[in-house]
Amino acid sequence: MPRPLYFDCNATTPVHPRVLEAMLPYFSRHPGNPGCAHDVGLMAKQALDRARARVAALVGLEQTDGVIFTGGATEANHLALLGTFMREGLVAPGWLAVSSVEHPAVLGPARVLERRGVQVVVLPVDGRGVVAPATLEEALRRSAGVVGPRLVSVMLANNETGVLQSLAELAAMAHAHGALLHTDAAQAVGKIPVHLPALGADYLTIAGHKMYAPKGVGALVCASAAARARLSPLVFGGGQEGGLRSGTENIPGIVALGEACALAAEDLPAEARRQEALAPILLDALAAAGVPFVVHGQTAPRLPQTLSLGLRDRRAGDVLSGLVMEDVAVSGGAACHGGTASMSGVLQAMGVAPEYGLGTIRISWGRFTTVGDMRELASRLVRVCR
Amino acid sequence: MPRPLYFDCNATTPVHPRVLEAMLPYFSRHPGNPGCAHDVGLMAKQALDRARARVAALVGLEQTDGVIFTGGATEANHLALLGTFMREGLVAPGWLAVSSVEHPAVLGPARVLERRGVQVVVLPVDGRGVVAPATLEEALRRSAGVVGPRLVSVMLANNETGVLQSLAELAAMAHAHGALLHTDAAQAVGKIPVHLPALGADYLTIAGHKMYAPKGVGALVCASAAARARLSPLVFGGGQEGGLRSGTENIPGIVALGEACALAAEDLPAEARRQEALAPILLDALAAAGVPFVVHGQTAPRLPQTLSLGLRDRRAGDVLSGLVMEDVAVSGGAACHGGTASMSGVLQAMGVAPEYGLGTIRISWGRFTTVGDMRELASRLVRVCR
Repeated sequence: MPRPLYFDCNATTPVHPRVLEAMLPYFSRHPGNPGCAHDVGLMAKQALDRARARVAALVGLEQTDGVIFTGGATEANHLALLGTFMREGLVAPGWLAVSSVEHPAVLGPARVLERRGVQVVVLPVDGRGVVAPATLEEALRRSAGVVGPRLVSVMLANNETGVLQSLAELAAMAHAHGALLHTDAAQAVGKIPVHLPALGADYLTIAGHKMYAPKGVGALVCASAAARARLSPLVFGGGQEGGLRSGTENIPGIVALGEACALAAEDLPAEARRQEALAPILLDALAAAGVPFVVHGQTAPRLPQTLSLGLRDRRAGDVLSGLVMEDVAVSGGAACHGGTASMSGVLQAMGVAPEYGLGTIRISWGRFTTVGDMRELASRLVRVCR
Repeated sequence: MPRPLYFDCNATTPVHPRVLEAMLPYFSRHPGNPGCAHDVGLMAKQALDRARARVAALVGLEQTDGVIFTGGATEANHLALLGTFMREGLVAPGWLAVSSVEHPAVLGPARVLERRGVQVVVLPVDGRGVVAPATLEEALRRSAGVVGPRLVSVMLANNETGVLQSLAELAAMAHAHGALLHTDAAQAVGKIPVHLPALGADYLTIAGHKMYAPKGVGALVCASAAARARLSPLVFGGGQEGGLRSGTENIPGIVALGEACALAAEDLPAEARRQEALAPILLDALAAAGVPFVVHGQTAPRLPQTLSLGLRDRRAGDVLSGLVMEDVAVSGGAACHGGTASMSGVLQAMGVAPEYGLGTIRISWGRFTTVGDMRELASRLVRVCR
């Protein structure tokens, strides 16, 4: 058996040993509920406060009470979108713009809001996968007469292609027209430096398990008290997280997310450069072997560790099966339903040609990936393609 | 320093070492996302399926697809209540009955539904804290003409008093009138044997962190495919949990919940008896010391490890402070807001007299509590009361 290669870090990252070590004491040794007024509860409360400060610090915020811990990025996206338009189970009219390459966890609630009377505009992307600021400008202009909240939700980094949006420009535009902006940064935070004040976003979604913390924890970060005050809770009960998210806090998960943020804050630019330098190993090997391919979004700003690789005249399912036989874990950028292959919504939105789109696989790596791993991946992928 | 005594297991339990051991490999060694079609993902998928079967087995179900994993009990309660009446952000008319002693995680969504047009009936409890079946019968009779879904939500065990409801009787009654029944069993599962088919409930809420699994995971268990089919999701996106709860599954937490269920299935009746036998140690010591007290709900069926202790002519805040100085962690059954002490909603609903109600503390213990711990608690509490 060849050694297993994990190149699916955009699906989920392993928990970092340092993160695991930080969270471990909070399972059994310090098991407190932070709502309890005794020493055991206080210990949990202090851990919660510390984690909140670490998350805020990573994204450049001094104020910590904008950080609302959730059960993951999907819930954080819901709090931003539904929490803007829905109050105690009633959707108010308003206006929402989302990009055509958003994750289902944004497109899903957007669709629900649309059915309940919110005007929803889907912003197209160009062939690189980027929203043209002029498109948003035009949409905002047309929304001038709309009654109710107006929100733009555009992701920071795309999960399939790693393509980054011009967030700062879009946010400034939204603000100039009196709208707020949410960004699903689940794939960006922990992979590239993200500075919320510089981006200008009002709300930012973080996913623990995309940045070496575990599954089951995430956060919505509000950039200001005013932005926070505009949200309504979706979950009611004990009133945790300042009333915005009831339910006993997931202390070990939250501590882990705090530690993962501290880790990222320490070494991110250098680690991102190291990961970025691994990409050419694969691309050069494919070129040298004469395998015809494109990298979707290649000319756009992108995450350092994601390659959406369109292999010409291949079926993604065949390539994935071949890689599984080689003990390589990657994801598809094209799905196969009932025997008919189809491109992902993201690739369709980018207008990718089928001869490259249908043979698209996503290769994503991370902190634990070495030069040797990438060389080995290249050799196995070339073998599968032959 | 005296050794710390933890008697707040109804707030949260420490994670059991066996549970921790079971979940540990899924943080870093097997970090897969179960949605991924490769070996790493498959490993996560198998763990998910196994945990689902273990949760189902603990509550006596053969079919496993009624188990919907959530981020905790609060979310599970929301899925049962809001998921019954709300479809894609719109609340439909209907009828909901809840008991007056429900947790805020049920009363909260019930209030939201009431504001959106659902008829909500609050069922009173008697002095023991028990809902009289005749009260529900009468409420159901009056609801006969109501259009839309009809749901009864009555907890299995109360968090403050440990009082158990006559669930089987209430469920049969609900069914006879064409209504469904949900029970928030967060405080019951893992503490007493719970058999869903025998109870007759259609939906049952489980909390990981009340039964030696960690915070951040729970489940709503549907007793039948028909009951499951009547729920609408509150979270949209990737379509996990059969479309009822999108978001990457919290695999380590879910594995832990599965292991905690397996642990409970192995030894629960005996362990419950052991814990129950500890109560008289405390009560006898208080009586011997001449401390006047009552146990709220004493004559009702109750959890084996919960005592809601009303100390006559005391302030709960003073007793709790005294116990904190003695390194004892318990909770209050009376809250102090801005200098004026008040009884909890549960004690008020039971009509508890203020001279006992205002001096109420909740003592709850568990698997790790020994005879020696209980003796030590008794001696410290007697000291505080003198």
